[in-house]
Amino acid sequence: MTKELIFGHQNPDTDAIGTAIAFSYLQNKLGYDTEAVALGNPNDETQCALDKFGFKAPRVVKTVKNEVDSVMLVDHNEPQQSVADIDQVNVSWVVDHHRIMNFNTANPLYYRAEPVGCTSTVVWKMYKENGVEIPANIAGIMLSAIISDTLLLKSPTTTQDDKNAVEFLAKVAGVDYQEYGLSLLKAGTNIASKTEKELINLDAKSFELNGHIVRIAQINTVDLPEAMERKAAFMKEMQNASASDNYEMFMLVITNILDSNSEAIVVGTDECKLLFEKAFDKKLVDSSVALPGVVSRKKQVVPPLTQAFAN
Amino acid sequence: MTKELIFGHQNPDTDAIGTAIAFSYLQNKLGYDTEAVALGNPNDETQCALDKFGFKAPRVVKTVKNEVDSVMLVDHNEPQQSVADIDQVNVSWVVDHHRIMNFNTANPLYYRAEPVGCTSTVVWKMYKENGVEIPANIAGIMLSAIISDTLLLKSPTTTQDDKNAVEFLAKVAGVDYQEYGLSLLKAGTNIASKTEKELINLDAKSFELNGHIVRIAQINTVDLPEAMERKAAFMKEMQNASASDNYEMFMLVITNILDSNSEAIVVGTDECKLLFEKAFDKKLVDSSVALPGVVSRKKQVVPPLTQAFAN
Repeated sequence: MTKELIFGHQNPDTDAIGTAIAFSYLQNKLGYDTEAVALGNPNDETQCALDKFGFKAPRVVKTVKNEVDSVMLVDHNEPQQSVADIDQVNVSWVVDHHRIMNFNTANPLYYRAEPVGCTSTVVWKMYKENGVEIPANIAGIMLSAIISDTLLLKSPTTTQDDKNAVEFLAKVAGVDYQEYGLSLLKAGTNIASKTEKELINLDAKSFELNGHIVRIAQINTVDLPEAMERKAAFMKEMQNASASDNYEMFMLVITNILDSNSEAIVVGTDECKLLFEKAFDKKLVDSSVALPGVVSRKKQVVPPLTQAFAN
Repeated sequence: MTKELIFGHQNPDTDAIGTAIAFSYLQNKLGYDTEAVALGNPNDETQCALDKFGFKAPRVVKTVKNEVDSVMLVDHNEPQQSVADIDQVNVSWVVDHHRIMNFNTANPLYYRAEPVGCTSTVVWKMYKENGVEIPANIAGIMLSAIISDTLLLKSPTTTQDDKNAVEFLAKVAGVDYQEYGLSLLKAGTNIASKTEKELINLDAKSFELNGHIVRIAQINTVDLPEAMERKAAFMKEMQNASASDNYEMFMLVITNILDSNSEAIVVGTDECKLLFEKAFDKKLVDSSVALPGVVSRKKQVVPPLTQAFAN
């Protein structure tokens, strides 16, 4: 069996890194030869989860063709969110929980996506379907991924499958998921120690919306007003990034993980800003707007933007 | 639960129709409200399978938005192979065994693809995973689909999963799959009673290859020389279809199901014909060429063409 690499998206989060580790373990048990790698270093929250369950951070790769002919993707499929030379290799497997966009292959492949809160919930099902026992540390890293992606089962992306997975995995990992979950999420909210440039890159993804390249970044916090004090500095860095990487719009979502409310800051072309206002039926005031109850980029931000940009 | 329609590709074959029936039964058992429909009437082979296991042909639909908001696709994903108004509805599920191409969604969905010989093999796994018992007639129609797509397990697309599925389903359906399989395949080879225009539309799919729209049709026979006697008439109809539907190339693959050899007839632009010759490393002589051992459009025709057209 020829070696394949498994990785999540750029600017990896706990799902991207944790699920790569868990899926690689499963695939190796099933006879594949895989290594979990990452397209960047773990963020504070992910590092907390890796430390808790005794994992080293996966090796960071910038390209893959120099190592392998074939790869497996977790937690993403859109090429612009993947490794730089994704078009140079075969994709043999995808496990994901996102929309499918611009993902084209020459050959049939394994593709397993479900509209659940976290990719690890899908991988948990695959362990069950294949009768592979889940070690405690693998259960712990999958549990961490689900807590992260669902904001401890509070995001509207949360499904019954995610809840079942969390109950099951917490038992195998031997942790109280409420207690551990809150400590994990809080580990990701330490924004005071980071520059605005670091923060807008921490959890940022690019989307192609009807031909427009739009960047959407998200930051978690427990103190929204404190974060918004840095608005002018955020906007400056968002404008710099847009100029250098040709984003027509850059949206920063700052989410309070305790009460599930967000504030959005938007820079971009007038056309894009009008489409943003149409998408959310709200006016930007001084380039920002409150988005009460919005916590999910995937379910509450990308779909309305996709619709507004489509028309 | 709002009603959804389930269907396979245009010019439906036994996989498209049989798997839609089997997947609809499974989904309804799991709590969905679905109806299996088809984008065309069954061919002779499919009709033989429907008769054998006591099914009526699914209702034919030309559009779906007039009936439902959401649909489930089996045995295809490429929009140009789907219903005419596929862009007007939500796709909530895909079960497939093809490459992914130009399939874009606004929302996360269930997508289950595996590189196996037939979509029914994937659906068979889903029955097992969900603990749903397979009735004898559903087993029979899934068995028929796998026999059809794998040419009785002889196509190079055949995997161990397909073989396991055939063994299992033949027992449930209560048939000798070798005996039934040969009679089923032979039912699809009665080309003498059909016009050339009918034959080039029987099992035809359009592909976008690096911007070129290419039509690839396939006919099964037990007498290749007899079929090739109609070459000039086939070419005339292929040229007519190309002119009216803007195909840059039309390729007809005529396959002898008994010895697994094919003959290809090709019409199209000089550029496309050169790319065809590059793809197969063979010269067209008088617009046709022998392709020994080639029986699978998906595995032995589309990939080399995709590669030749890409460069």
